[in-house]
Amino acid sequence: MMSMIPPTRFSRPNYYYYTSLRFLSLSIHHSFLIPIQLRNITSPKTLNLTITNSSSSFTAKSSSELRKNRSNGGVDDDKLGALRGLFSNPTTAIDAYIIPSQDAHQSEFIAECYMRRAYISGFTGSAGTAVVTNQTAALWTDGRYFLQAEKQLNSSWTLMRAGTPGVPSTSEWLNDVLSPGSRIGIDPFLFSSNAVEELKQAITSNSHELVYLYEYNLVDKIWNEARPKPPSNPIRVHDLKYAGVDVSTKLSNLRSELTSAGSSAIVISMLDEIAWLLNLRGNDIPHSPVMYAYLIVEVDAAKLFINKSKVTGEVKSYLKGAGVELKAYESILTEVKSLAAKGAHLWLDTSSVNAAIASTYGAACDEYIRGVGSKPKVRSMTKPGSSGHSGGPPAAIYRPSPVSLSKSLKNSAELEGMRNAHLRDAAALAQFWDWLEEEIQKDTVLTEVDVSDKLLEFRSKQAGFVGTSFDTISGSGANGAIIHYKPEPHSCGLVDASKLFLLDSGAQYIDGTTDITRTVHFGEPSAWQKECFTRVLQGHIALDQAVFPENTPGFVLDAFARSSLWKIGLDYRHGTGHGVGAALNVHEGPQSISYRFGNTTPLMTGMVVSNEPGYYEDHAFGIRIENLLYVKEVNTPNRFGGIGYIGFEKLTFVPIQAKMVDMSLLSVAEIDWLNEYHSQVWEKVSLLLNGSPREWLWKNTRPLVKV
Amino acid sequence: MMSMIPPTRFSRPNYYYYTSLRFLSLSIHHSFLIPIQLRNITSPKTLNLTITNSSSSFTAKSSSELRKNRSNGGVDDDKLGALRGLFSNPTTAIDAYIIPSQDAHQSEFIAECYMRRAYISGFTGSAGTAVVTNQTAALWTDGRYFLQAEKQLNSSWTLMRAGTPGVPSTSEWLNDVLSPGSRIGIDPFLFSSNAVEELKQAITSNSHELVYLYEYNLVDKIWNEARPKPPSNPIRVHDLKYAGVDVSTKLSNLRSELTSAGSSAIVISMLDEIAWLLNLRGNDIPHSPVMYAYLIVEVDAAKLFINKSKVTGEVKSYLKGAGVELKAYESILTEVKSLAAKGAHLWLDTSSVNAAIASTYGAACDEYIRGVGSKPKVRSMTKPGSSGHSGGPPAAIYRPSPVSLSKSLKNSAELEGMRNAHLRDAAALAQFWDWLEEEIQKDTVLTEVDVSDKLLEFRSKQAGFVGTSFDTISGSGANGAIIHYKPEPHSCGLVDASKLFLLDSGAQYIDGTTDITRTVHFGEPSAWQKECFTRVLQGHIALDQAVFPENTPGFVLDAFARSSLWKIGLDYRHGTGHGVGAALNVHEGPQSISYRFGNTTPLMTGMVVSNEPGYYEDHAFGIRIENLLYVKEVNTPNRFGGIGYIGFEKLTFVPIQAKMVDMSLLSVAEIDWLNEYHSQVWEKVSLLLNGSPREWLWKNTRPLVKV
Repeated sequence: MMSMIPPTRFSRPNYYYYTSLRFLSLSIHHSFLIPIQLRNITSPKTLNLTITNSSSSFTAKSSSELRKNRSNGGVDDDKLGALRGLFSNPTTAIDAYIIPSQDAHQSEFIAECYMRRAYISGFTGSAGTAVVTNQTAALWTDGRYFLQAEKQLNSSWTLMRAGTPGVPSTSEWLNDVLSPGSRIGIDPFLFSSNAVEELKQAITSNSHELVYLYEYNLVDKIWNEARPKPPSNPIRVHDLKYAGVDVSTKLSNLRSELTSAGSSAIVISMLDEIAWLLNLRGNDIPHSPVMYAYLIVEVDAAKLFINKSKVTGEVKSYLKGAGVELKAYESILTEVKSLAAKGAHLWLDTSSVNAAIASTYGAACDEYIRGVGSKPKVRSMTKPGSSGHSGGPPAAIYRPSPVSLSKSLKNSAELEGMRNAHLRDAAALAQFWDWLEEEIQKDTVLTEVDVSDKLLEFRSKQAGFVGTSFDTISGSGANGAIIHYKPEPHSCGLVDASKLFLLDSGAQYIDGTTDITRTVHFGEPSAWQKECFTRVLQGHIALDQAVFPENTPGFVLDAFARSSLWKIGLDYRHGTGHGVGAALNVHEGPQSISYRFGNTTPLMTGMVVSNEPGYYEDHAFGIRIENLLYVKEVNTPNRFGGIGYIGFEKLTFVPIQAKMVDMSLLSVAEIDWLNEYHSQVWEKVSLLLNGSPREWLWKNTRPLVKV
Repeated sequence: MMSMIPPTRFSRPNYYYYTSLRFLSLSIHHSFLIPIQLRNITSPKTLNLTITNSSSSFTAKSSSELRKNRSNGGVDDDKLGALRGLFSNPTTAIDAYIIPSQDAHQSEFIAECYMRRAYISGFTGSAGTAVVTNQTAALWTDGRYFLQAEKQLNSSWTLMRAGTPGVPSTSEWLNDVLSPGSRIGIDPFLFSSNAVEELKQAITSNSHELVYLYEYNLVDKIWNEARPKPPSNPIRVHDLKYAGVDVSTKLSNLRSELTSAGSSAIVISMLDEIAWLLNLRGNDIPHSPVMYAYLIVEVDAAKLFINKSKVTGEVKSYLKGAGVELKAYESILTEVKSLAAKGAHLWLDTSSVNAAIASTYGAACDEYIRGVGSKPKVRSMTKPGSSGHSGGPPAAIYRPSPVSLSKSLKNSAELEGMRNAHLRDAAALAQFWDWLEEEIQKDTVLTEVDVSDKLLEFRSKQAGFVGTSFDTISGSGANGAIIHYKPEPHSCGLVDASKLFLLDSGAQYIDGTTDITRTVHFGEPSAWQKECFTRVLQGHIALDQAVFPENTPGFVLDAFARSSLWKIGLDYRHGTGHGVGAALNVHEGPQSISYRFGNTTPLMTGMVVSNEPGYYEDHAFGIRIENLLYVKEVNTPNRFGGIGYIGFEKLTFVPIQAKMVDMSLLSVAEIDWLNEYHSQVWEKVSLLLNGSPREWLWKNTRPLVKV
């Protein structure tokens, strides 16, 4: 599937240090906008969607026009009134409040109770930042959501069409509308440490002050009783037969990394990292089998900060056995303070750890230093390579979390689980396509959502099914060209037999995570559609077949996937591959395959990546062909340079529709690839099928012959 | 041809600013070593040869061992004695002297009178740095030259095998052997401003002082009468029919760039930039048609600093007409001082301008500021984007020279000249190959140098021939695997009819510059040699046929050239393409095509690049296939994103030996490429030939049919 995250911003100053992208924001030019911060470098979200300027028909408003708007009033908005009522509270005393989309963990998908921006603004899209001042309220979102936001925002709100010329960034706007020296409030849990630093920088020019409101989130206060409770679904142990490595081994490896970096403790806040490290799975968030928690690992202790109602007796004793202590989710800052008081050298990944934690630790360190009577020192910012030895005053070690890379390198049990989950998923898809083709044949009227629901039904019958791994993209005709299309029951289109149909979907199973896209035609595709499909397929094959020396970053391979499209002046505005977790998040880092060359993480044996080139023609059709690939060393006949050569093994085994292929464009080698793939699909998946779906699989895996 | 320059160092701090590589040094780990500084970003030399550790049989000496060596004495070396005699001169008073390979202009090839490092050490290789202290003398060079240096250095010298584990960098070594607080002398003309800053940084840890000796070069002093005179060959006007754009237009464009950058003058020190800007050509340096000079362009004046004996009456009046004033070469510093006194904002490319100029300007600016009585200011280091307006105190504007990119974008006259020169060059090569095959047939004994001389003879008969564009690499068998092999008359090998023969050569013509490599077998190549050759050819074809969106940096295409080799675990340790000047230097920037991704300069319409993948098997054979390509917009049927799509047009038209091709590996499209190429070769070159060479061309351009 394509990432739901706006394009990453190439944050040059961090480049050398982190070797990759950290701060993701809506556009190159609006750095603070929608400060989605992903812990993983280029992260999954790495697909790096370029904003298509589908909004060119809208005229941007200049900030002076916007100022005029303030006096226009707009409707009376009770929520805004109540929120502004809190501004003057003496302990608050702010002139503006920023409400981002994030939860406290930089999660891609979030629980409902944390959807504060949606609650306050009424705009429910996945990406957006709301800013409320005493006089005005504005919401920034990107081109994907302009239409939706127009419908959902009432007239008290000004829509800021990010990426459109003349539209200021959030901080530019704040500098413009507030009198110099204003106080801008934020919930410090909802901003990564890096995002806050960038924001501070941006508003200092106007002498504004950024005010951290630790006590409570202002939106929660007015949401009050109506606010959904934070999720408290029971967590479960991820069986060792799927996890492959036990918790004590993982903790011990992590502790070695801490020690060699001169650190004595680490705060982990990315939910998938916690789930992976502790071999636990949760159910707090749609699509991601994780639970809300923080984890602190010290050299001689581990503490999980979690709502204890989620922890069953079984899990409690399991954690006890692993030496992991349970703490209240809310006590994280208290613990961070006490770590500073102990003189701990805390490893912080400032791209993922929120500003509340980083700032609390910083203040506590300063206090420690004053306490021991030594002259105030600037806390050292230890760089990779230098060793911040323990002992002496506490000091932060700012580095990317070491769990990210470890998690990305699947062990044999995880690989086995991924392989098996993909075969069951393929069986469900064969059943689904067989059903759909028959229904279309019968002229049954089906909406994009009907079809997506039916697919869920087939998948849910497979062993070990847990849920979807993201919102299914089921797009007929022109909807297929909307890269992040999310069909809604009352507004979606019908599946039109005379148009292309793009289906990007995935599932969570107990043993693995899937993500697959196929594009089909139920009638007769045009020659042009076939040419486009075939060139996308050639890119897919070129990447699938690539062999490359170890230490090659993913971006080196990206051009293989585009080359055939480029030859006739076509391209696609997203990356080609993202990392995928094993029975975990469908988007993970640190690797990626993208035309953006900021992420220099090499593709390494054990990683899983998607291979998903595409082509999209606005208002017409979309094409994407996606398989997941396992990265592994290839047994080449030579090893020039004495190094290993790396390639891919397919995990996804679902037929590619033959009628979409223009055989005249394919080389003999490409036809061989397709036939070999289909032969493997039959061999691996037919055993799991019978009856009509088995026949469908047979028909759709027959070898093609070059005419 | 392959570049003669050691690998570039990815200088991260400059990355953002210059978007590319600037400081070239021998190895990543020895940053000061052989501080060849190329004005052009990744520059030509961009081929980025990775040091092959052909030296693994040598044991590196630790610096403590080296210290012991000092007391061993070594032979009495008169030159070293004389040089050391100058150390204690009161106006000098130094403890060590560094003698680099460079001239004052960071030229790739240099005039004999500037070969001070070769004179003092006896080592004549193209790359090396000598350092002499009162007790010891050491010479650093890279793996290409270990054997040669061993032979050429007498026992007073310690060979420092750069790139070998345990071998210190020049500055590490200086820190080690000198007492703290020593004075290290350099000739500031021979180091770029950037190189000196890096050196200073490296030696401050031991409190050494870097002493700029402006008065005279110490080696020149002892070389004395024996030193060759600086070249004073007459310069000539480069005809407008080849240059395409006249000097006043070029100067006017440059002045616009100065003005918009807030600069009032620029010092240009790269010799090819001066030659290009003034439409002049010279004969001071082997292979490069340039003359030693500096050029200062002010908003309302232009001054050429040159030995006036080179300037004929014709050129003098030509320059006068173009508003270019003549000044003595030696008066450059005086002029720089007076520019500061005038309050000029001087544009300096610190990667090419030498430390003498940059430092003199800095000191003069400080003096100006003290002079006007204002409080001392730090000179502003203006960054791109900010505008350093004229007026107020003088200040340097540090940016890459704007001439580099302008020069790289060939106009239609330059392109025409390049096309024509390549056809005449192809005719000479056809004559040569026809001759060579016949001689081999007759069992004539020929050395690699005989063959290279004969090639020069054929070329020199072509109209407009000026000279070679680099030292011909003529390598039979194992010598072909030495990427920068330079056969010498008394030591080179014979051309062996039973082995592969690699020939990389090029010429300067009045209208263009060529650079071509072909690899042939005179007998029967082995299946393995054919497979390797064919995979190199597939890479060559893939790059040749690439189409890509505008704004694509060269490194994105590099993998196309390697992909076929990678599939069987093979690779080559150099970049794939460098820029080429039009009747100018065979290596130029700012573009390159390399596996190193530091150079983000896009390939732009008008550039010329080489396409030269290879494969080298140590002690056995080398394969390289090189054509020059012109970069141009391609008329694709679509233009996704509303942008242009770019591709290549071949400039080189010389047959590729059919017997080396393993047809079973080639796709139909690849065979079509080869046949189409050969058909063009025949069509374009046969008109320039008759007799036996024409027959040879006919035989060698017949279409191949897939068996």
